Amino acid sequence: MVFCTVAVLELQSFVMTDQKKENKIAEFCGNVELCRLTEQVVFSDPYKVSEYNRCTSPYLDADAETVRNDNGLKIEVAELKSKFCERAQALIHGDLHTGSLMVTHDSTQVIDPEFSFYGPMGFDIGAFIGNLILAYFSQDGHADQANDRKSYKVWILKTITETWNLFHQKFLALWDEHKDGPGEAYLPEIYNNTELQQLVKKKYMKELFEDTLGFGAAKMIRRIVGVAHVEDFESIKDVAKRADCERQALNCAKKLLKERRNIKSIEEVVSTIEQVQLQ
Amino acid sequence: MVFCTVAVLELQSFVMTDQKKENKIAEFCGNVELCRLTEQVVFSDPYKVSEYNRCTSPYLDADAETVRNDNGLKIEVAELKSKFCERAQALIHGDLHTGSLMVTHDSTQVIDPEFSFYGPMGFDIGAFIGNLILAYFSQDGHADQANDRKSYKVWILKTITETWNLFHQKFLALWDEHKDGPGEAYLPEIYNNTELQQLVKKKYMKELFEDTLGFGAAKMIRRIVGVAHVEDFESIKDVAKRADCERQALNCAKKLLKERRNIKSIEEVVSTIEQVQLQ
Repeated sequence: MVFCTVAVLELQSFVMTDQKKENKIAEFCGNVELCRLTEQVVFSDPYKVSEYNRCTSPYLDADAETVRNDNGLKIEVAELKSKFCERAQALIHGDLHTGSLMVTHDSTQVIDPEFSFYGPMGFDIGAFIGNLILAYFSQDGHADQANDRKSYKVWILKTITETWNLFHQKFLALWDEHKDGPGEAYLPEIYNNTELQQLVKKKYMKELFEDTLGFGAAKMIRRIVGVAHVEDFESIKDVAKRADCERQALNCAKKLLKERRNIKSIEEVVSTIEQVQLQ
Repeated sequence: MVFCTVAVLELQSFVMTDQKKENKIAEFCGNVELCRLTEQVVFSDPYKVSEYNRCTSPYLDADAETVRNDNGLKIEVAELKSKFCERAQALIHGDLHTGSLMVTHDSTQVIDPEFSFYGPMGFDIGAFIGNLILAYFSQDGHADQANDRKSYKVWILKTITETWNLFHQKFLALWDEHKDGPGEAYLPEIYNNTELQQLVKKKYMKELFEDTLGFGAAKMIRRIVGVAHVEDFESIKDVAKRADCERQALNCAKKLLKERRNIKSIEEVVSTIEQVQLQ
């Protein structure tokens, strides 16, 4: 699975000393320009009037304006932006949308690492899951008599669930494997009983899940009202139909971003996606 | 006031471009050894058996053991440790206890900047407030017939309140002053209405307050059961009396650290200090 690789990359507070991690952070500090570009196109442009933004006009003009006037959304985006800019949690890919993944039955390769830097882990996993959700909402725009896309939609939802669950499982397995060092985040002399180990893992994974939903949703929003869009929607020829699909995805993203702290599981994310589609 | 200087230092996401901030972060990334030392003595040693730890033995042996066995405390300390290691929020002093401040009526100077790095702001303000709280709890150990220290204790509590309130006020004033850039954290085109500006400021200052209490409390704990202590307690000749004072400070720190998210104001911190002393 894709996220085995990513989980290994991202476990660096567990598998290397903090001194070594700090040296690695310094090594990647040079990658400023591309980080700033991400910051601008993901966390700023969609929330202000900008010549770079575009959307399926005129159908989505009012939706784009609603995003720009949504105080609750902009407060949450400020938090995510500061986390993106300030939290050197692990070496992340930085642009891990589905187009950066080359998959065959036997092999998974991740390409285009030019945006990589030490940032928050949820940004990577969120990008991937966010793109799967965009793909889901685009399917009705591609459905026709020959293929109603229903089974493909079921597959996408299953892949969303599996992605998080396998990441979660693999991450914790690697944490256990490296629990005796040299990572210094959770020293075994301190986190020295089963109850405590379970509590810290639960707390850690809860925050990572919330970050994943927040960053994933922010990346969905920017693909609908920001500068760069996704082929899943772009290739829907009927513009009104495309706008309908995009609006559903946008509403889902806003819901996930604002309510991420109360969403308990990836299964609940899937329910949210299905509910938005029914509305 | 002391914290005018610190507030200016710490407003860097507001007063400089993110590119410039990233370059500054890279510049300070070299300061790895002293950051790691802080990490060890503040967030690790007090929570495990270590040859470096000491406490007023035998009186505080059981209290030190309780700290080492407190799962709830260790979970919170893990969060603070990861914030200390990962969050490049601003250029901070890194060791801003009261001994690093030289004050006369006309002038305030901060010395010993060798621990400075890009870290979480609450670590500095918390260190200062934490040391004031330690000073407060040490007073009963120094009281005698000539001086019951009561008025000095009142002055310390007043200084704690003023420190936070003036920092808060000055920080927000500087934020307003620099609201049109070149800082990129809260672009005026996005945070473009009074209600929203008030909401983001409130959210920002709430997190900074929680960090201040968390880091301040962690630094109090390490001064009682860790390697380096404070002269306020060390100079109490009567060892049993010293242990009583230290125990009160330790209990206060544990309470502040665990309950920091529910503490609404610095006045509530002062009430907590007074309640612990009465117990």
